[in-house]
Amino acid sequence: MLRSCSALATLPFARQGAQNWKAWRVNGARVNKHLVDLSRFGANPQGGVSRVAFSDADIAGRRFVMDLMKEAGLTASIDPAGNIFGVRAGSQGSALPILFGSHIDSVPEGGNFDGDVGSCSAVEVAHTLAERGYHNRHPLHVVIWCDEESGLTGSRGFIGDLPTDEIERPGRDGVVLAEKIRRIGGDPARIVEARHGPGSIAAYVELHIEQGAILDERGINIGIVEGIVGIHHYDVTLRGFANHAGTTPMDRRQNAMLAAAELVLIVDRVVRSVEGRQVGTVGRLLVKPGAPNVIPGQVDLTVELRDLSTEKIERLWTQIHSEALATAKQYGVTLDYTLQHVNPPALSTPAVRQVIADAVHDLGLSSLSMPSGAGHDAQDLARIGPMGMIFVPSVKGISHSPLELTRPDDVTNGANVLLQTVLRLDQT
Amino acid sequence: MLRSCSALATLPFARQGAQNWKAWRVNGARVNKHLVDLSRFGANPQGGVSRVAFSDADIAGRRFVMDLMKEAGLTASIDPAGNIFGVRAGSQGSALPILFGSHIDSVPEGGNFDGDVGSCSAVEVAHTLAERGYHNRHPLHVVIWCDEESGLTGSRGFIGDLPTDEIERPGRDGVVLAEKIRRIGGDPARIVEARHGPGSIAAYVELHIEQGAILDERGINIGIVEGIVGIHHYDVTLRGFANHAGTTPMDRRQNAMLAAAELVLIVDRVVRSVEGRQVGTVGRLLVKPGAPNVIPGQVDLTVELRDLSTEKIERLWTQIHSEALATAKQYGVTLDYTLQHVNPPALSTPAVRQVIADAVHDLGLSSLSMPSGAGHDAQDLARIGPMGMIFVPSVKGISHSPLELTRPDDVTNGANVLLQTVLRLDQT
Repeated sequence: MLRSCSALATLPFARQGAQNWKAWRVNGARVNKHLVDLSRFGANPQGGVSRVAFSDADIAGRRFVMDLMKEAGLTASIDPAGNIFGVRAGSQGSALPILFGSHIDSVPEGGNFDGDVGSCSAVEVAHTLAERGYHNRHPLHVVIWCDEESGLTGSRGFIGDLPTDEIERPGRDGVVLAEKIRRIGGDPARIVEARHGPGSIAAYVELHIEQGAILDERGINIGIVEGIVGIHHYDVTLRGFANHAGTTPMDRRQNAMLAAAELVLIVDRVVRSVEGRQVGTVGRLLVKPGAPNVIPGQVDLTVELRDLSTEKIERLWTQIHSEALATAKQYGVTLDYTLQHVNPPALSTPAVRQVIADAVHDLGLSSLSMPSGAGHDAQDLARIGPMGMIFVPSVKGISHSPLELTRPDDVTNGANVLLQTVLRLDQT
Repeated sequence: MLRSCSALATLPFARQGAQNWKAWRVNGARVNKHLVDLSRFGANPQGGVSRVAFSDADIAGRRFVMDLMKEAGLTASIDPAGNIFGVRAGSQGSALPILFGSHIDSVPEGGNFDGDVGSCSAVEVAHTLAERGYHNRHPLHVVIWCDEESGLTGSRGFIGDLPTDEIERPGRDGVVLAEKIRRIGGDPARIVEARHGPGSIAAYVELHIEQGAILDERGINIGIVEGIVGIHHYDVTLRGFANHAGTTPMDRRQNAMLAAAELVLIVDRVVRSVEGRQVGTVGRLLVKPGAPNVIPGQVDLTVELRDLSTEKIERLWTQIHSEALATAKQYGVTLDYTLQHVNPPALSTPAVRQVIADAVHDLGLSSLSMPSGAGHDAQDLARIGPMGMIFVPSVKGISHSPLELTRPDDVTNGANVLLQTVLRLDQT
């Protein structure tokens, strides 16, 4: 396939017919090889990668991707927020840019596909267009967002939603974000120049792995994303009274762990009690003081609720809070909470969804409309312009794990859908 | 009171009548002052002490107590296991020693009374006997056990239950126990010489704070301990599957935290379901990976069960395990456990209990027979000879906390009961 593509690349643009570009395909072997090459940066002995944003592994991986961009004929640069852009100039001066890409940073002990599939495929699309000698009307911007995993840092910088106090605040590692952005080639002092307002892009399209098991279990090739769910993250503190586990009779305890256990079960029951695809999780739970012979005096835990409807999330929380509060009282335990963090839901643009659906159809692939339960940079881009997302299957739905896997054929399918979507968007 | 005691101390032994010693009392002001003095070693700014065994604060506190012993006319020395002994020779060559004492090491951020009350009172009893010029028949050994809090190290050394591999094993701080014992003046190479077999002591009596609220709430002066409860400590691991909290539908999860929450509630319900004073606690619970946006794949937790009857503990665990296992299965979660640690129950000796009861009666104090829910060095001593324990009230039952408090009058009452118990044991 590589050989035939190379041969085609020598054809002059005049030979491109209106029908012809619909037959173009990415080089599947190449994009899958680039995925393997990228997986070496931050590789863990037990498999998968720890390519945490701003780490040495991230910096090396970013350099590798910039080299790939250059091979693909793109002009590569880093914006003040630390995002990498690979630009292919357009023929029509007034046309807004079409953006497509993803991220290459990972969670600690993450997998080789989350972000990487969309990133390598975006470069591959550009490479294919270069080989085809395609004359795009819109400027095409391949983008690798910086620090997706710990809070969509780069894409928020791009849409002007990265507050100064956040940039100047030390992270959990004690290093301020500004210093980290500088470390990867950004320029936080000029962050305002990274900002793009509504109406400044023609469209943003992101290919990503599903990170769930729906496509894999049903044997479907492509997910067409209806929107990215909203997330409410609550920090809950339950306070009882720490005391000696041997000398305090059962009926004289104010055991914060019992109230916490009830809350964990309430979250699960309430979230399941109504129809729909909403999810709710207690993922972090810290018991204090945390000794086998001390009755827990305090438990700090997180409740995370996700749905495409903010109203539904709020309704679920009201019920969870009311039930948990009443139960905690019965244990002599107080309950306080803060809404630590809100990601509003981001619906994809129907016109872009339709373009993706057309591309999928012409490629002879099967597809399913579905929400994205995970957050993505695309949710930020939706705030300034048309947005669409393409999902490819994750084997067994495993993600954020060394066991994360998207099969090579699915990577190639996704890259082809991205290619055909970009071509359609450029020509309409 | 100090003045009159000093006056009495000058009386010759010949003047001690059989009735007379029953009127002897400790110097309450002095023992309470010594408690305050001792609390300066390892004092925390927010109150209480961190006088963890083998720390500089512990070493300084031990030196202070050895000085008190000398003032009380005792011959002070450190045995190979690191225990401090203050000896008052007896008049009857063949009589076995009567031991009484406690410990002065504390938990991190502990209080000023746990261990200290029994230690200062034991020295005070010896001081009072010296002032009275009492001619004891039995050798009297005031003992300060080393490292009670992290595992009854000194008293286990004394009864020959400190295995060589434990002595040579590094602790959580990386320092081997032998090195720590040397640091406080012990001699681990001669540990075998510290060993005392069954039948080597006349009796062991320990005064201690209750560390529970029963005496305080009921306004009772003295607890006469029936025995020290047995402890079974189980380490439980629940394994599900860690996955993305946004992309994994509610009905496709194997959430280890849900199974753990059920287990926490099962422990509480089963332990309360039968009559008695047994207690059960999940005090430590660790969620992995522990991120708000990841479904918990594993939870490690401890279950601690305490009762005077081992059979009852085993029966409770069988029921807890069986219910928790069935529930875990419903969540697609596996349950494994190990019985990490067993302290067998140690009953006090009825004859010693009776002597304590007589002393309490003659002092005009109120008392209650009760189990000790906490572990004490006395449980080791019960394995080699007659054992008795005296409890004094803990205000609100608070212990292992800077808020720990035993009122001065209660300290004095406890010391007087100890004095009168030792006198009775010596004369019978």
